[in-house]
Amino acid sequence: MRKNDVYYYENPVRVLSYSSCVGKKEGEGPLGGCFDVVASDDRFGQQTWEQAEKAMVQTSLRGALHKAGLDHGELGCVLGGDLLNQCVSTSYAVRDLKARFFGLYGACSTMAESLVLGGALISGGFEGKALCTASSHFCSAERQYRYPLEYGGQRAPTAQWTATASGSVLLTSEEKGKVAVTRGMAGRIYDPGVTDAANMGAAMAQAAYETLRSYFATTAEDPASYDLIVTGDLASIGRDLVLELAKDDGIDFDGRYTDCGLMLYDREAQDVHAGGSGCGCSAAVLCGHILPEMERGALKRVLFCGSGALLSPLTTSQGESIPGICHLVCLEAV
Amino acid sequence: MRKNDVYYYENPVRVLSYSSCVGKKEGEGPLGGCFDVVASDDRFGQQTWEQAEKAMVQTSLRGALHKAGLDHGELGCVLGGDLLNQCVSTSYAVRDLKARFFGLYGACSTMAESLVLGGALISGGFEGKALCTASSHFCSAERQYRYPLEYGGQRAPTAQWTATASGSVLLTSEEKGKVAVTRGMAGRIYDPGVTDAANMGAAMAQAAYETLRSYFATTAEDPASYDLIVTGDLASIGRDLVLELAKDDGIDFDGRYTDCGLMLYDREAQDVHAGGSGCGCSAAVLCGHILPEMERGALKRVLFCGSGALLSPLTTSQGESIPGICHLVCLEAV
Repeated sequence: MRKNDVYYYENPVRVLSYSSCVGKKEGEGPLGGCFDVVASDDRFGQQTWEQAEKAMVQTSLRGALHKAGLDHGELGCVLGGDLLNQCVSTSYAVRDLKARFFGLYGACSTMAESLVLGGALISGGFEGKALCTASSHFCSAERQYRYPLEYGGQRAPTAQWTATASGSVLLTSEEKGKVAVTRGMAGRIYDPGVTDAANMGAAMAQAAYETLRSYFATTAEDPASYDLIVTGDLASIGRDLVLELAKDDGIDFDGRYTDCGLMLYDREAQDVHAGGSGCGCSAAVLCGHILPEMERGALKRVLFCGSGALLSPLTTSQGESIPGICHLVCLEAV
Repeated sequence: MRKNDVYYYENPVRVLSYSSCVGKKEGEGPLGGCFDVVASDDRFGQQTWEQAEKAMVQTSLRGALHKAGLDHGELGCVLGGDLLNQCVSTSYAVRDLKARFFGLYGACSTMAESLVLGGALISGGFEGKALCTASSHFCSAERQYRYPLEYGGQRAPTAQWTATASGSVLLTSEEKGKVAVTRGMAGRIYDPGVTDAANMGAAMAQAAYETLRSYFATTAEDPASYDLIVTGDLASIGRDLVLELAKDDGIDFDGRYTDCGLMLYDREAQDVHAGGSGCGCSAAVLCGHILPEMERGALKRVLFCGSGALLSPLTTSQGESIPGICHLVCLEAV
């Protein structure tokens, strides 16, 4: 059922398994020990960055299936996407799985978007299992969105670092597993008029805040109802803006709010400027850190909010501002 | 509920309204008189092809809302996408609507993908209304996928013509309107190894056929159960391959099967080579021709199958073959 903008998953939607695969730099960060697979070389044994990203996605997809004992079984549908033009990392990775596939594009909100839709398909009785996935690769993204690495382009202080990371979550209708997806919410697009593609945190902050505000208003909850509220990926500038907007409305996060882009890297030591970004950042932080913490009982209730900047290099060059969006799921330990 | 790969929408999913907006060439084709808006100039009064595509999408979105009397009302969510990198035509067009938004990427299968998911969200009780949309623009697509128009590149005989077209369908949970979406099915990816990006019909044909074969096997129906089975967009080469594959399996379409890419243009007079393509082709044929024919009683049961080629120019240049996918919805006059 739905109340205002919030989907309530009345039939069980459980996390059956999950897996993460990240690059070398992400493996050297504060969460480095949490991921299932850390590459020793960001090429993942492939000839091109795009093939590397595909191999990384395959690793996380197959990792989640393997943990659920579904190496050869019926896995339901896959929902997911990535940052590459035409979402090719994901579709090529899914090609070999023989799964039904819904391709999504939500920029960095893709992991949350896939969980919102996957949860609805399972709770609605349309799927028994849904494999939700998102990924990004620093090198393929830099080449596509900015400059080839060989160019040695300088980065703005407000810029975020696209994570080389992939996360996959297998949802099930069975009452198995220690984490449930109990609610979901698709976001509206907000565009505060930011035209600087090197400052996407600022562009996405309003969308993230509006989704949170609307969610709390509908559910009659507040930040104190959660152990952790996490956006991905606003990084330091966007995170601060969310806190400011909340303060103006008298919403007190009381230290319960952070952002995946601030968790994946050591900002100072790893030179990532404002913090991490890319579809894979929040996907890998979810699969490498948040879900394990929920399984071990350290976190009971988590709001996972995926924020995306719906621009393209072409729209930026044509002077357009950057629309932001934020989707959200409520995760509960059971 | 689901049986094998088929979603059965047990709660009402009805077509409340729909609208189409197309370019000049499409207006001169055999269906020219069917569309709500035909541009006199493919620039749609804008400065760039991308802005033109956005304006076209806005016209079809607002057209569907206007027909439903929802110019200022609560419209539920929007599900959709287009062919441009990062699906910017759709997200910029949706930006002004203040609607919750699920961005999709299914290449030319996007219209069907949005209807499958929109139907599930409505039947599952998560949405009261869902606006499903897809679009493409010849000039923005040529520049992005092939050559800028000014280059005057030659087209292969197997090539398809990307339609300048957009279609939007507003689904509702109310028992209103003369057409119901009764079933949906997400497709699996099939890749027969075609590497020629100028022959996408051949690349997608197997996926389209496998979706149809699997659908008929699950529902215990056959082509005779339908007045029209329509793929979009395989054009002449893909359509012939589907007929051949069906013949090998003893499935007789008995003249009930055609393809949106063969309906939108006069192939000979309009020089579109194998036929039409692009997300907007099947979306506009659906909204301009198929749904009106169902409303006036000329078609009772229709299988609408959206086929997409999940490649990118980059994967083609790296030697990858072209994965195809096909999603399907069953439309019934009520």
